[in-house]
Amino acid sequence: MNTLLLKHVFWEGRTRNVLVRGNRYACLDAAEGAEADRVADASGLALLPAFYNGHTHLAMSLLRGYADDMPLQTWLQDHIWPYEAKLTAADIRRGSDLSVREMLAGGTVFFNDMYFEPEETIRVVASSGLRAAIGITVMDNHSLAQQASKHAFVREWKDPTGGRIQLAIAPHAIYTVCERRLRECAEWAREAGLRLHIHLSETRREVADCLREHGTTPVRYLDRIGFLGPDVVAAHCVHVDAEEWDILASRGVTVVHCPCSNMKLGSGRFPYERAIASGVRVALGTDGCSSNNNVDMREEMKFAALLAKCVSAREDGLLENEGAADLLPASLVFDWATRGGAAAFGIDGGEVAEGKLADGLLVSLDAPKMQPCHHLLSNWVYAADSTAVKMVLCDGKIVYEAHDGKTL
Amino acid sequence: MNTLLLKHVFWEGRTRNVLVRGNRYACLDAAEGAEADRVADASGLALLPAFYNGHTHLAMSLLRGYADDMPLQTWLQDHIWPYEAKLTAADIRRGSDLSVREMLAGGTVFFNDMYFEPEETIRVVASSGLRAAIGITVMDNHSLAQQASKHAFVREWKDPTGGRIQLAIAPHAIYTVCERRLRECAEWAREAGLRLHIHLSETRREVADCLREHGTTPVRYLDRIGFLGPDVVAAHCVHVDAEEWDILASRGVTVVHCPCSNMKLGSGRFPYERAIASGVRVALGTDGCSSNNNVDMREEMKFAALLAKCVSAREDGLLENEGAADLLPASLVFDWATRGGAAAFGIDGGEVAEGKLADGLLVSLDAPKMQPCHHLLSNWVYAADSTAVKMVLCDGKIVYEAHDGKTL
Repeated sequence: MNTLLLKHVFWEGRTRNVLVRGNRYACLDAAEGAEADRVADASGLALLPAFYNGHTHLAMSLLRGYADDMPLQTWLQDHIWPYEAKLTAADIRRGSDLSVREMLAGGTVFFNDMYFEPEETIRVVASSGLRAAIGITVMDNHSLAQQASKHAFVREWKDPTGGRIQLAIAPHAIYTVCERRLRECAEWAREAGLRLHIHLSETRREVADCLREHGTTPVRYLDRIGFLGPDVVAAHCVHVDAEEWDILASRGVTVVHCPCSNMKLGSGRFPYERAIASGVRVALGTDGCSSNNNVDMREEMKFAALLAKCVSAREDGLLENEGAADLLPASLVFDWATRGGAAAFGIDGGEVAEGKLADGLLVSLDAPKMQPCHHLLSNWVYAADSTAVKMVLCDGKIVYEAHDGKTL
Repeated sequence: MNTLLLKHVFWEGRTRNVLVRGNRYACLDAAEGAEADRVADASGLALLPAFYNGHTHLAMSLLRGYADDMPLQTWLQDHIWPYEAKLTAADIRRGSDLSVREMLAGGTVFFNDMYFEPEETIRVVASSGLRAAIGITVMDNHSLAQQASKHAFVREWKDPTGGRIQLAIAPHAIYTVCERRLRECAEWAREAGLRLHIHLSETRREVADCLREHGTTPVRYLDRIGFLGPDVVAAHCVHVDAEEWDILASRGVTVVHCPCSNMKLGSGRFPYERAIASGVRVALGTDGCSSNNNVDMREEMKFAALLAKCVSAREDGLLENEGAADLLPASLVFDWATRGGAAAFGIDGGEVAEGKLADGLLVSLDAPKMQPCHHLLSNWVYAADSTAVKMVLCDGKIVYEAHDGKTL
């Protein structure tokens, strides 16, 4: 098995040598004289778990800046969907490649995607060295032939990377996929042993429409039809009441919080207090580049941590002065961005520990935004940007090095 | 006069040559054969106005990550003030230097500072090539001897840079400076021809205390004592009612919006709708590195633009579904971050135009976050980070070049 030695890397309070064997961390305190197939000089760099992006539409990087500053329905129906209708498979490949380059430079090693032409994105992921869950997108307006070819694709699927890519069944949302098809998707995913990926309770309108059409709210509706379970990854969940949070938590659903998208589209503020109180598993996601407009998980952590503090229940007349400055501290949002996403997809990573998958990033301790180092995680969540990322590991391999990276 | 030619730079829709003579833009469409003392190859780079940071405590970079995730009064009284009491002049110099390095790399050419040991910060600014307004901080707990030495400093002040540095009189806030001293500060500033810099209406508690002590709200109180005018730069203004916005606008006050700080400390959401409706001049500021935790104006723009859209008056039951996704578009927040700050301090810059001061930044059009380029400003506000900044001009001089910058 190949070995990689990170020499003089800063981890957990001091400098040490970290040995990777195959695709896992083998020793977090190797001897000074340890040998390896590859030795990387990591002095001045700190090792952190890499990011797992819980919700993307990867190739939407092509639409970055194409339509901004307008509400969700106008944005979607009048701008995004007409543009998307013209995209070719080659476009999807170029858009996926652009986002993968951005993700690598920012320390993201996994993304959970919902888009079109999955073969193209799979090709890009395979050659990049990253991990991904690639959604087989289902919408009612897809033809029977399209549906059949999706089923064939899933039946014949074999991960070309031997473990880095999984498929997911991705019914778009309750307002674009009918009840019968949602049930079919759940059955299909469970037969195939795949996860389910869906947009859920993103806007007030979705909730109001669901109440009118199904006589109940989106989470209760999905629960009633047997959709929810520990294999479900639900993006957004902005408009969810306390009882619904308990349903999501008790079914083992992973909720993917996408603060930038929710803010930019005016969808609303994620109910941090209730989500945290319910104990539900939370992951962090960037959503697509048209509502964000990047796939920068570091920035996403800061948005979540600050939005949580800004306007809280406590400000609604309950406390005279302050918001909730102690809500969603750096350590918790970092956990969402790393362990939360990994756990949701059964990836044995998300933390730096012996025996765990060697997915990690190395940040410069000398970058101005990382100095001084009273608290490494605080600097990473609240101060840094991607200039600090000097090296990224995925599955035990170096998948990114900054131009100024030092490697022996 | 020295000349600088930016060759093949992208500006306003096409590639051209931009000539800087002395400290101003001389020609935005120079001939291909134009000559200059220095020629910089700017191909693949777009020229944009640089940032003017309206509110900083520069040397607080030393406290980055020192105390997070707690409300303003605890944070200030139990952590920040005790730490600050131990800072030496040499510390202030190091902290200022750290922030200046970060600002240069992010495209900021000016900051309006309120801190201690102004001589140290002035020394750093002078050698960096940046601009600044350096506040002479006034608090009631300063001794008479300290006050006298401040007055002597202002009397004897001569800008060592011949135009890049101005002093300001900076009474900290209405809750740390008594009415008599606030009046004295206003008189002092007006006699000396300096601007006034103050924290104003940052928290609900400040408003409640002011009502109890002075029988009116902070803006009305300052107006009553003759403090407000076009020379006043007021940071925060989070808790300001509609009539107070009209007072601020009619007095010509510049309001500095600091979204990250307001969010992180749980101070509240800036009332964008009212501020914009009043026509008041707005600048953007990062505040100190302990409540942000950086001095990254690009990130600050995104926070402002997204917070404006997230939770608006329209969401308080007036509209069923969406927030205010059309509020504070990219162009307006960019204007706050550039022209707003320059105008507040009488700096004839903030835009790229012939005859204006040559303060600018060059961003890479090839950086993944800047591609594709449907809308340059949208990419800059919503997608970029400092990796895209390749060169910064201040007062006609190149003050920063990225390591990979190409210069002839």
